[in-house]
Amino acid sequence: MEGPVLKTELFPNPAPIDSIDLLKAGRHYLVRVRGGGLTGYSEAHSSVMSVAYPILLKRVIPNFVKKDARQLERIFGEAYVAQSNYKWQGLPFWVSMAAVEIAILDLLGQAAKKPLGELLGTVTKREIGVYRASGNRGNAPEAEIDYLKKIAAEDGAAAIKYRLGARMRYNDASTRRDLALIELTRKTFGEKMTIYADANGSYDVPMALRIGRAMEATNHRFFEEPAPFDYYDETREIAAALKIPIALGEEEMSLRGFRRIIEHRIADIVQPDLMYFGGMIRSIKVARMAAAAGMECTPHMSGGGLGYLYVAHFASCVPNAGPHQEYKGMDGTLPVECATAPLKSVNGKLTVPTGPGLGVTIDPDFLKRAEVVRG
Amino acid sequence: MEGPVLKTELFPNPAPIDSIDLLKAGRHYLVRVRGGGLTGYSEAHSSVMSVAYPILLKRVIPNFVKKDARQLERIFGEAYVAQSNYKWQGLPFWVSMAAVEIAILDLLGQAAKKPLGELLGTVTKREIGVYRASGNRGNAPEAEIDYLKKIAAEDGAAAIKYRLGARMRYNDASTRRDLALIELTRKTFGEKMTIYADANGSYDVPMALRIGRAMEATNHRFFEEPAPFDYYDETREIAAALKIPIALGEEEMSLRGFRRIIEHRIADIVQPDLMYFGGMIRSIKVARMAAAAGMECTPHMSGGGLGYLYVAHFASCVPNAGPHQEYKGMDGTLPVECATAPLKSVNGKLTVPTGPGLGVTIDPDFLKRAEVVRG
Repeated sequence: MEGPVLKTELFPNPAPIDSIDLLKAGRHYLVRVRGGGLTGYSEAHSSVMSVAYPILLKRVIPNFVKKDARQLERIFGEAYVAQSNYKWQGLPFWVSMAAVEIAILDLLGQAAKKPLGELLGTVTKREIGVYRASGNRGNAPEAEIDYLKKIAAEDGAAAIKYRLGARMRYNDASTRRDLALIELTRKTFGEKMTIYADANGSYDVPMALRIGRAMEATNHRFFEEPAPFDYYDETREIAAALKIPIALGEEEMSLRGFRRIIEHRIADIVQPDLMYFGGMIRSIKVARMAAAAGMECTPHMSGGGLGYLYVAHFASCVPNAGPHQEYKGMDGTLPVECATAPLKSVNGKLTVPTGPGLGVTIDPDFLKRAEVVRG
Repeated sequence: MEGPVLKTELFPNPAPIDSIDLLKAGRHYLVRVRGGGLTGYSEAHSSVMSVAYPILLKRVIPNFVKKDARQLERIFGEAYVAQSNYKWQGLPFWVSMAAVEIAILDLLGQAAKKPLGELLGTVTKREIGVYRASGNRGNAPEAEIDYLKKIAAEDGAAAIKYRLGARMRYNDASTRRDLALIELTRKTFGEKMTIYADANGSYDVPMALRIGRAMEATNHRFFEEPAPFDYYDETREIAAALKIPIALGEEEMSLRGFRRIIEHRIADIVQPDLMYFGGMIRSIKVARMAAAAGMECTPHMSGGGLGYLYVAHFASCVPNAGPHQEYKGMDGTLPVECATAPLKSVNGKLTVPTGPGLGVTIDPDFLKRAEVVRG
């Protein structure tokens, strides 16, 4: 569980990191890693990076340049301590670390001629079930049902997720909407649809129990973040009282924090965000801890550009990733090509590319228009 | 304990916030708040702000402009939820929030013609005992003793703090230095000096117990961060086993996190950093929780420019702030004047200014040279 994740035995030769750059093209930020004649890319969670880029440039990148990419796990650990970066543990720091990690993994995949999942584990799935997530809140239940029908039809989705509460609070209107949607989703989509819902920390314990019991009565599959994310005592109380699994973890920034959630069964399903939490390897460590406790680790998906692809590679090699991964539809503004997968959900499934690294090629003309972001 | 901190009854008239700007002058970043003919300033932790400024400009400032400063606590809470900022909870976000909060408090102090402490509590102390902290690590014990003698003499300090371990790790060399310094500091400075030491998360439990017992034998007053900051189980074990008080909190980013530390007695003294943790009001809430448990709340001090002044105002009105506050000496590159206090430690004490707000005036010529930082 504490052992290495990256299979260094796949790389007999040095993999020097000559340079790491942040590129901007349109509204997209990309990290580019070059070394040994190879180039790796990641989409760097552009909406976060538009604010976090000085952290990436000044506190993260310098710790990785001129190192051997095969030592990624050691370098990553050193970068956490260097410049007292551990005090900066949080979303913008970890997104920056994740963007560099994934670009390095893309480069290493090319060196080993293997897809990401094979660098980090054993690939057991090429078809990844997804749930289609709605971002709406505050609309009428009927309007939300129409929207869910539309997005589920787009993908032929076998699973959906919608939002409950009023984000970190609730009120009478949100509770009426919640209770209506809990009934209507099941009635509309029938018993075959897997239904999830996310409260984004909206409830106190009594309301969470009320909502959770309604979700149990309509066979919802998990109940995400019933209480504010750092209200661990309340969340544990909710998880203990309800049969429906409680999911938690999008805001968790510490490996020890996930260990605590798992050991004390504060939630039943853990959800590191592959970007917010600092990348694939840290998230796989959470999945290993969860597996040892018989729990699922189903990542939260962020990062519009290629976030779905990171989640697909993660699920390809993590046995306890759960039956459906989060999917928010295609953004489509980042022009990528892939010969081995359609890069969108088809019949409720994403296909994992089998090419090296991420397995996709970013349009060279788009890259030509990109500018290097300076400090 | 959960009640308001800011004494809104001091402000019978509206206190509009017309504009908030980030200024840069030399290497200093200042936040300037203007409204109702008044101007408030804070020094915005310049080394952090040089990297965090897009977060301040895009995720923090917009939530405060055109609001009534008297509603600071409510606006602050709303800004934590707005734009899903709670996911960004961490050092760069909270430093940005703190910089805005303190500038607003400076403005409110002018409106009420009262110093900061009187806006936030009852001022019971004007002379604040300080400990002089050394930032060295890795030098020879004798060299560190010479340095501690020098800085203690500068201030006539009655308390000192030095560093143990190797920052988030230890080795044979650091342990030899630790054990030598634990003896030598007491031998050199005698029984009258209060001696603190900070391990910056260097130890595992057995080494923390070994070092802690040596500190007990030489009557050290607290042992800061023996284990990595998010190793709560280990820190609680250390705190329970040792008589010397364990201090913790510089990296804690969540109010609930401090509640957990206090309720589960993970440490004996809590140390929110007034900047990293998001300002005076949040830190006073921690102090109130600590007081209810009979514990001290002694802030960590950061923010070279005016950090010492924020700590002095905090200690002026917080009864359980402990006998000595952290002091790192004067930076002196930010030109400020004060008619009511010398703005440096004299005979081991800082004097709290009695003028309105922070009680200091930034040199107008320096302000003239400052440029507004744009997004």
